[in-house]
Order: sequence, then structure tokens, then C-alpha cells
Amino acid sequence: MIDAENVACETCTAPGELVFDASDEASRAWPKIDIAKNPYKADFPLLAARPDLSFLDSAATSQRPASVLDAQRHFYESMNANPLRGLYSLSVEATEAIEKVRTQVARFIGADTAAEHSASGSDASRDIIFLRNTSEALNLVAKSFAPLVLSEGDEIALTIMEHHSNLIPWQEVARKTGAHLVYLRPSATGELSAQEIAEKIGKRTKIVAVGHVSNVMGVENPVAALACAAHKHGAYVVVDAAQSVLHMPIDVQALGADFLAFSAHKALGPMGVGVLWGRHELLERMPPMLTGGEMIDSVTEEAAVWAPVPEKFEAGTQDAAGIYALGAALRYITDEVGYESIQTRERALVHYLMSRMVELPFVDIIGSIYWDRHHGVVSFNVQGIHPHDVASILDAEGVCIRAGHHCAQPLLAWLQVEHRACCRASLAFYNDARDIDAFIAGLKKVWEVFHG
Amino acid sequence: MIDAENVACETCTAPGELVFDASDEASRAWPKIDIAKNPYKADFPLLAARPDLSFLDSAATSQRPASVLDAQRHFYESMNANPLRGLYSLSVEATEAIEKVRTQVARFIGADTAAEHSASGSDASRDIIFLRNTSEALNLVAKSFAPLVLSEGDEIALTIMEHHSNLIPWQEVARKTGAHLVYLRPSATGELSAQEIAEKIGKRTKIVAVGHVSNVMGVENPVAALACAAHKHGAYVVVDAAQSVLHMPIDVQALGADFLAFSAHKALGPMGVGVLWGRHELLERMPPMLTGGEMIDSVTEEAAVWAPVPEKFEAGTQDAAGIYALGAALRYITDEVGYESIQTRERALVHYLMSRMVELPFVDIIGSIYWDRHHGVVSFNVQGIHPHDVASILDAEGVCIRAGHHCAQPLLAWLQVEHRACCRASLAFYNDARDIDAFIAGLKKVWEVFHG
Repeated sequence: MIDAENVACETCTAPGELVFDASDEASRAWPKIDIAKNPYKADFPLLAARPDLSFLDSAATSQRPASVLDAQRHFYESMNANPLRGLYSLSVEATEAIEKVRTQVARFIGADTAAEHSASGSDASRDIIFLRNTSEALNLVAKSFAPLVLSEGDEIALTIMEHHSNLIPWQEVARKTGAHLVYLRPSATGELSAQEIAEKIGKRTKIVAVGHVSNVMGVENPVAALACAAHKHGAYVVVDAAQSVLHMPIDVQALGADFLAFSAHKALGPMGVGVLWGRHELLERMPPMLTGGEMIDSVTEEAAVWAPVPEKFEAGTQDAAGIYALGAALRYITDEVGYESIQTRERALVHYLMSRMVELPFVDIIGSIYWDRHHGVVSFNVQGIHPHDVASILDAEGVCIRAGHHCAQPLLAWLQVEHRACCRASLAFYNDARDIDAFIAGLKKVWEVFHG
Repeated sequence: MIDAENVACETCTAPGELVFDASDEASRAWPKIDIAKNPYKADFPLLAARPDLSFLDSAATSQRPASVLDAQRHFYESMNANPLRGLYSLSVEATEAIEKVRTQVARFIGADTAAEHSASGSDASRDIIFLRNTSEALNLVAKSFAPLVLSEGDEIALTIMEHHSNLIPWQEVARKTGAHLVYLRPSATGELSAQEIAEKIGKRTKIVAVGHVSNVMGVENPVAALACAAHKHGAYVVVDAAQSVLHMPIDVQALGADFLAFSAHKALGPMGVGVLWGRHELLERMPPMLTGGEMIDSVTEEAAVWAPVPEKFEAGTQDAAGIYALGAALRYITDEVGYESIQTRERALVHYLMSRMVELPFVDIIGSIYWDRHHGVVSFNVQGIHPHDVASILDAEGVCIRAGHHCAQPLLAWLQVEHRACCRASLAFYNDARDIDAFIAGLKKVWEVFHG
């Protein structure tokens, strides 16, 4: 997708084409699969129990397959103990289970092939930090890493599409360090131009913060191109992968990321578990954000010596059962379904969704009109009707969508969206044609209620 | 227990006697109940499935009754959605479920009867903040509240018994503000004297941080007396209730706490959920520690306006399922078992445990020799044998105990414990005589292995 010829650097993998070519019809063919069939729904207890429900809010939180819920319960029923602190088998078992998931996550995001690790043979799982959610992960980078590299007058570049989680922490650190925020602004269809990148990322840039996929526009940002530009100027790249992880394979090397964060709960895993990956030498330099048990080597009355990475960043008792269940979620994604099937099905679903939506003249889609620019997320408004009313009427029809500012107020202001709010339908591979038909019928109902 | 006549203040409820009276034989009678019978074990799937296991590590993490695991799963299977952000029924249901638990927690710790709330009729549940664990809660107070009241030369008073979670955050804020740490030191049996309190808490004291029950000595600290002394000097009281919550009713008013923290996982709830309660006007003054989604009212490109308490402190997606399960845990404690039964049984268990331990001449108990000074926790060493060896041999016998520094290195140094490490057996009401018999037999085995 991304051609970074004009911004190529040695740090990143060569990343394809930067600017989306709207005339590229060939790439626009959608998979001809039968999306009325749904081989996955039975795996998801809530969806199986509620055939009346069209869950189109996976961008807020995904549903969980039974295997994930089974894993979480299995932990509590068979190995429940506080990991790290115990010498008895139960606790050792709990500790090993968590460390296995660390290794699994490292592989899942391509951290295990990082040059620094493959060369030295060191353990990439040590660069995986378990936190509560993406917000906490991004806060950790902004609070512990950013002050190490920011001085007055320096710039933090971020897209105006960022979720508040990848925006407010940067406002805070900018305020504290005297650095400035510089916003990269996309076109109305969500495209960041090469010119915008060249103009906004320069020698004063120290950090580039970018969402891999926008939670409002659904567009995939040219992370690798941004990373090339950033690295050329010695800046660091922080990737918010919360919205991409369920939809496409993540490879921190190919993206050129220095830090990458995601949440388990948006990737079929439990709530309460987030992941931060960072380049090892950067994590080494960072002080902890939270202090307490489990994150020290030694403590006297006066001072403490921090434990090595990753324990340094994991104060107190972790959600060990949740981490264990995250392992089951990633296994379901990679081994039970596979990203190829996920992507094929999602492309077919999004194509069907958008081709039905454009038939409705009273619906305005936000962002690209091209279905293949939307990675599971389609935001829209119904003309003259407040998004909250749209969502309420759809709810009565059993259709779950989000309405509001989607934690992206600066984006909605930049796009001049009416009411600074919009509706959002978001899909995952476990949806089917029936969900979309119910949604479309619901939108017609909305229009009828107000204009019938 | 606590008589704070010499330190009485108007803020706190009159709190009983300060100094433990070792000659008070009358209060030392133990409940004559049959602890061989165990009406609770069947409620706990792991314990029921492993009758061979003696789980004596509840101070690290408790076991969970099936009703808690059922609740967690029920959330995911029947109301799974991201709370707060949604207008559809599923999400509204999730939001309401969480807010109900907030109200339940407020009642559970006596926050609902706080003068400020009962007078104004305001909602005490708004002072309950959901975080990951006690460590995070104490970090929030140290990072967001403490700098508001600390200046160079001010003092933070804390006991040398504090868990690292209630110690390192204070070291950090002292370093940043120029304040000093002042340690209250107990006797070898864990008693804080009135003199120690009078000497260490004075006009330079701004914050008093205290664990309600020591995770090493098992002793209940005279929190109300400390609070009276603190309030007399205008200082604030931060209570770490992690180790008391499963063993005695908590009443923030009677304790005279300004902040109180505990973890769900030590109170039959899931891992990954912690609670901070704070006095409303203090929470109002505090800036957030983490920023991101869900904790703002509005965001522009330049700045953000924080949401009210408690959302201001809850950035990103919470562990809604975990919070819902915490509700089930508290219900099990208060409605299914009840603190009266919990305390009666625990007293009988601890009495039996210690009376068996004192029969072993090679076992040195740390702290008080009086069983009624130990709230579920008995630390010890086996003469001349490293605690790690003790724990390993006990593990082979199916007995789970902790060995190490118990995140209380300054205490072990102060007590001059050999190796700066010890063993710890910790009980809950779901234990029984068989667990203790296996433990005692295991200790004999340990001695035999080394001296047989």
C-alpha cells in the first residue's frame, strides 16, 4: 500500500506505495464468498445465544470465543496463584503460563525477528509488557520515554485522526516539556499525502505517534512511510494498533515501529489486559511509571533498585488469568481462523455493507467512498438526524452501533462533522450478511420514523 | 483495640485502645468450632478439585468461588459490550452493572455513610475508582494527590511494615518534592507504641501511609489512632487495605482514612481489578494520572477538559467483566458467608495453626507469639534452613506457602531476619484443619530432610 521512495530509510523494511490510487480498479475486486454462511458464530457464546442481535460495535470491544472464556476460567480453576512470587508448583505453573504468552505475543507482532534479537539471540519476549489497556501503554511511553528525548521547541507529530488515548498523553508531555504538537491532516477521505508527511516531519520532530487504523475513518495509515520519515530525522515512532490487531497481521519491523500498543479486548481477548512492545534499548532507558511490588530488585528505607525489563513496568499483581486468556485469543486468531480467512471475509463483509449503504440517499459516509479503504469500520451520519437518535432506533431493532465522538473530537472538528458526532458500524469476521441486512433495514426505519 | 485518647480528634470515630494488652487473657479465648468440617471448600472449584492441596498463600492471592467465575463469564456471554460509550441496550446494561458495583463497594467499605455524603445526599459511589490493583491505587495517590500537599522539608510518615507498594511510591514523591520519609517502627512483636506515634507524627507530617494489616506480621495496625494523630496536625491518611479486606469489615469512617485501597484478587474477586476510595473533595482536586479515552469532557487540538470523578481517573476501557465479578465476590463475602462467620472461623484456624507451630522447637515465628494478633498471616523461619528450601519441600507435600522477602525488604532488615527472607503461611476461612495438619507434617518433614 505504501511507497515511501521519497522517505526511504535503512531502518525500515521497504513498504510499498504511499498514496492510495483510487483508479486502481484491479485491487478493488472483492472476495466472492458466501457471507450469509457464518462458520464462526457458534464459537462465540453471546452471538450464538442472541441470533436476534446484530453486533456492529467490534471497534469498541470484540466478542470472545468460548475458548477464551474457557482459558480464563481454567486459570482460576487449575493454576490460580500469584505468579512470580511463589516457589510452589501452582505459582510456578502460573508464572510459566504468563511467560509463554509473552513469547506468543512477541511472535504475533513480529518482535521475535527484530534484528537486535535475531543477531544477539536474546529473548524478544522480554520486550512485551503487560498493562491494562492501550491507553495505559501509550501513557507509559508518553510519561516515561518521551521526557528522555523531548526539549523545549521539539515537535511531536501525530495525525489529527488519533484516538484521545494517543493524543491527550502527548498534549500533557508537550505541556510539561515545552514541546509542540504538530498535526498531520488527512484529506476528507482519510489520506495522508506525501507532502503532508514531508512538511510535518522534520528535524525538530522527536516523536511520531500514529494510529495504525483510524477508529473513525477505518483507514490504514501509512505507518511505514511515516516511520521512514521519522527515522530519517532521528525521531521515534509510536504505533497505536488497537484498531488494526483484529483485522490484519501486525509486524513491528515492517511498520518501522519503535513502540506498539494494543488491547486484548479488541482482539477477542478479555478486558483488562493491554500490551506494550518497545525496542529493547529504549525500554532499558525508561524509568518505571508505577512502582510497588514485583518491579524491584531490592529496596532499602531510602531507595529502590528496579528489576529488569519487563518486570520494571509491571508493578503489583498482574491479571494473570487475563493474560493467559489473551494467549487463547491469539491462538484462535492465528490457528483457528487465520488472518487470511479473517481478511477475506472482512473484505467481503465491508464491501457488502458499503454497497448497501450507498443505496440509501439519506446516509452520508465519513471518509473514503471506497470500501477497500475501510478496515472493518464505517462511520456515517443520517442526514438531519442526530447520531444518538439513529443509534437508539437501531437498538430497538437489535442492531448495536456506536454514536458519539468516538474519542476523536479533534478529527470530527477537522472534518466539520455536524454535531461533532457520528454513527459508526464496525465489523469483524464473525459478522454475516444477516447482521448487515438488519442494519440496512434499521437505517430505513430510522428515516421512516423521522420522515415517514 | 485502639485507644487514641492522647491523640483523639474530631474527624475520627472514637477508636478503642491503642496498645495491645498482652495480659488481656479474656479476649484471647478462641472460638470452639469444628474446623475439620469445611462447608466452604465445595464453593471453590480449585480447592474442590485438589483435595490433596493445602493452599496457605491467600495473602498473595485468594481463591475464587464458582459464583465469581460464573459472574465473570456471564458478563462476557450476556452483556459483553464496552460500557460508557454505547447507546444500545447491551452497552447500557454493561454500564449499569458497573455502576451498581460502585455503589456496592461504597457500602462495603462504609463510604456511603461518610458525613459529606449523608449530609448532602450526594452519591458516595462516585468516590470509588476502579483501577488494576492496590499498587496502582497507591501510585495514583502518591503521584496525583501528594504533590498538592508536599513541599520541601515536609514529612511522609509510614510504618516500616509497609508493602513495597505503599513504600516505593512515597520514596519517589519524596525525591521529587524534597519531602522526607519518616518510618514508624514497631516492636519485634509488631506493636506500634503511642510514643512512636507521638514522636513520628507531628507538625511537619503531611501524609501518613499505613497498611491496615501487615502482610508479614499479620498484625492489625492502629489506623484510627494514627489517623487521629495525623488529622490533629492537618495530615492526610492513606490506608492500604489489601491484607485486611478478606479478614475484617472495612469502615473508612471508623478508620479515619482519607484514601483507602484494596485489590479484588485478595478478596475472592478476579485479578486485574483494584479499588481506590478517596474523600470526594480530595479526589476533585487531583489531576488524572493517566489520560486518554473515557476520562474527558472535551478535547481540542490544544487541550482537554477532564471528566468528573471517578471517570477522570479511569482512562481507556475498564475491565468491566472483572468489576462485575468483584460485585459477586463482595456479595459472597457479605451475604453468603458474612464477616462474623469469616472471623470466627479464621480465629479458630489461626489459633490451631499457631498452637501446632509452637510445638515445633525448630520453628521461629516472626512477630507476636499471640495467635489473636495474627489476622490470617503467620510468618516464620525454620532454624538454619533457607526459606526457599522450606517452601520447596512443603510444595512436594502439596502445601503452598510463600518464601522470600514478601515485598517488605525494609521490614525484614529492621527485624534483622536471617537471609532477609522468611516463610509465610496465610489462611482464609476456606481453609480447614486438614490444611494445617498437612502443613505441620510438612514442617516436620523439612526438619527430617536436613537433620534426619
